[in-house]
Amino acid sequence: MTTVAAYAAPAAKAPLERTTIERRAVGEFDVLIDIKFAGICHSDIHQAREGWGEAIFPMVPGHEIAGVVSEVGPGVTGFAVGDRVGVGCMVDSCRECDNCKDGLEQYCAKRPTWTYNAVGKDGEPTYGGYSEKIVVDENYVVRIPDGLSLDVAAPLLCAGITTYSPLRHWNTGPGKKVAVVGFGGLGHMGVKIAHALGAEVTVLSQSLRKQDDGLRLGADHYHATSDPTTFEKLAGTFDLILNTVSAPLDFPAFLSLLRTNGAMVNVGLPEEPVQIPLSGLFGNRRNLTSSNIGGIRETQEMLDFCAEHGIGAEIELIGADQINEAYERVVASDVRYRFVIDAATI
Amino acid sequence: MTTVAAYAAPAAKAPLERTTIERRAVGEFDVLIDIKFAGICHSDIHQAREGWGEAIFPMVPGHEIAGVVSEVGPGVTGFAVGDRVGVGCMVDSCRECDNCKDGLEQYCAKRPTWTYNAVGKDGEPTYGGYSEKIVVDENYVVRIPDGLSLDVAAPLLCAGITTYSPLRHWNTGPGKKVAVVGFGGLGHMGVKIAHALGAEVTVLSQSLRKQDDGLRLGADHYHATSDPTTFEKLAGTFDLILNTVSAPLDFPAFLSLLRTNGAMVNVGLPEEPVQIPLSGLFGNRRNLTSSNIGGIRETQEMLDFCAEHGIGAEIELIGADQINEAYERVVASDVRYRFVIDAATI
Repeated sequence: MTTVAAYAAPAAKAPLERTTIERRAVGEFDVLIDIKFAGICHSDIHQAREGWGEAIFPMVPGHEIAGVVSEVGPGVTGFAVGDRVGVGCMVDSCRECDNCKDGLEQYCAKRPTWTYNAVGKDGEPTYGGYSEKIVVDENYVVRIPDGLSLDVAAPLLCAGITTYSPLRHWNTGPGKKVAVVGFGGLGHMGVKIAHALGAEVTVLSQSLRKQDDGLRLGADHYHATSDPTTFEKLAGTFDLILNTVSAPLDFPAFLSLLRTNGAMVNVGLPEEPVQIPLSGLFGNRRNLTSSNIGGIRETQEMLDFCAEHGIGAEIELIGADQINEAYERVVASDVRYRFVIDAATI
Repeated sequence: MTTVAAYAAPAAKAPLERTTIERRAVGEFDVLIDIKFAGICHSDIHQAREGWGEAIFPMVPGHEIAGVVSEVGPGVTGFAVGDRVGVGCMVDSCRECDNCKDGLEQYCAKRPTWTYNAVGKDGEPTYGGYSEKIVVDENYVVRIPDGLSLDVAAPLLCAGITTYSPLRHWNTGPGKKVAVVGFGGLGHMGVKIAHALGAEVTVLSQSLRKQDDGLRLGADHYHATSDPTTFEKLAGTFDLILNTVSAPLDFPAFLSLLRTNGAMVNVGLPEEPVQIPLSGLFGNRRNLTSSNIGGIRETQEMLDFCAEHGIGAEIELIGADQINEAYERVVASDVRYRFVIDAATI
């Protein structure tokens, strides 16, 4: 056991504060990681505020972790001390179900062990990346290629894979038209990745406030959804709509923008119940679906793809004492485009 | 112009009665068909009763038409007098949009001309199959293979293609598990076709009342959805759920029966608005979608497939004077499994 500094929410909706937690001893297949950077994901806030249901406190959020290996267990074969590595939303899964065997650990039949706000196989609560160090089984660790700086790589571990996985699953590439709904932490990664995959990319954002950024980061078009003519002009246009907004939307209006056989993929889970009229699905064999991060193998593939294409997140680097302020700004959509905590300040 | 006998609803919700209608003169590319049999589809009733919105009266329903060609226009190349043919839900479309060019005329950007309760390119209302004869452009006529009797072939023109198209689109075949929700006119065709495609087929019906029929017609399993243990036992089982029920369902419960990447396809359009919670889609990358009949090319493919596999509908043959009674029995789910009108009695 190692005692490490961390930032934790002591209770639901309470501000995060500096504390210490225990990390387990490095086991046979474990990797000890010195955390260098941790991204702040909107889902950290959903969970720290119990917006998605009962949570475990104290909670150390953080599932966008980039760091350097400082110790490995005797059975570890994939990593060595000094390796640049990342950890995302999962630190374990059953490894036996069809989904785990297919590299879709995120859909593990027994649920994956989430990086925080979960209970590990040892019966202990898991604690996330807002801390100095973490111990993770090597099967749930990925390599960060040399070409990627650790700070801009950290958000790829959730925001990157959450957008990369559905873009790939729905065959995004040249000749395909993709709309990204929302231009925040997830949305800006969706734009960069869809563009790098060769698609024609349109941002659908509430306003044109971030239009310059959108076009600079890879979008071909940028439209305001507050303008009703957007929906008339773009009817029947898109092969794929990647919805990164976790607030309720006018789903039939967005579905009407799909081409025949097009799909609208939701990656943001709203806190409040959202109802969708079935009739919005009729016509043009439209699909409504969701996607949840990606598997470990696909996360590595995404990091390699991002390194090859020079893709990192657009970040605002902060000290740990700014976490609570950053949370307020994320809720207010006032971040371009991801806060990343410099773990040296924890 | 030819005057032919027909059964029409004179107004919304009024009983159908015998009348006469005019059929257009046989044009250059037209085929005149002596109708032999016409199926009664639940959507005939939805429309005759204005359940789907404002309708055109008098209305001659019927889009499951089987007959014999009795005259062809000078430009017709695909059909000759004496040919056994069918007409389904469409008698025309724009022929220029991407969907029409792709053989997906049912999703025509300008909407197809429906076989009845629509206005044709000549500005005249269309009248359906509850009549002695019909004149149709040859591009919207399909051939009924010799191996299929016309009476059991008639329902294939809607119930057959409505189930065949999504089963094919979602790659139904050996190794795939398909659930058919509802065991009526559409459902029994879905079971026969999914079985012939090589899938493992499960019927999900409210009760076990028709279980013997289901197993006889090709289902491997038959479960009652009124039994809550059905949903526990079958969680995560199906690659495809074909929902033929046009009444509201507990969608999250049905979605939970899908495997990873599975799809629930809705082919029945409820009259009342149905709301689906978005949260039911999260987990296992589930798809919710719809399908609407099929294109002309695919309808021919379906008829050839059915002939090859000896598949026709299970029918109750009735005289035209029994149409109103048959409507009541369809609404009461009291038909095994499709009423077909003997057009000789019109």
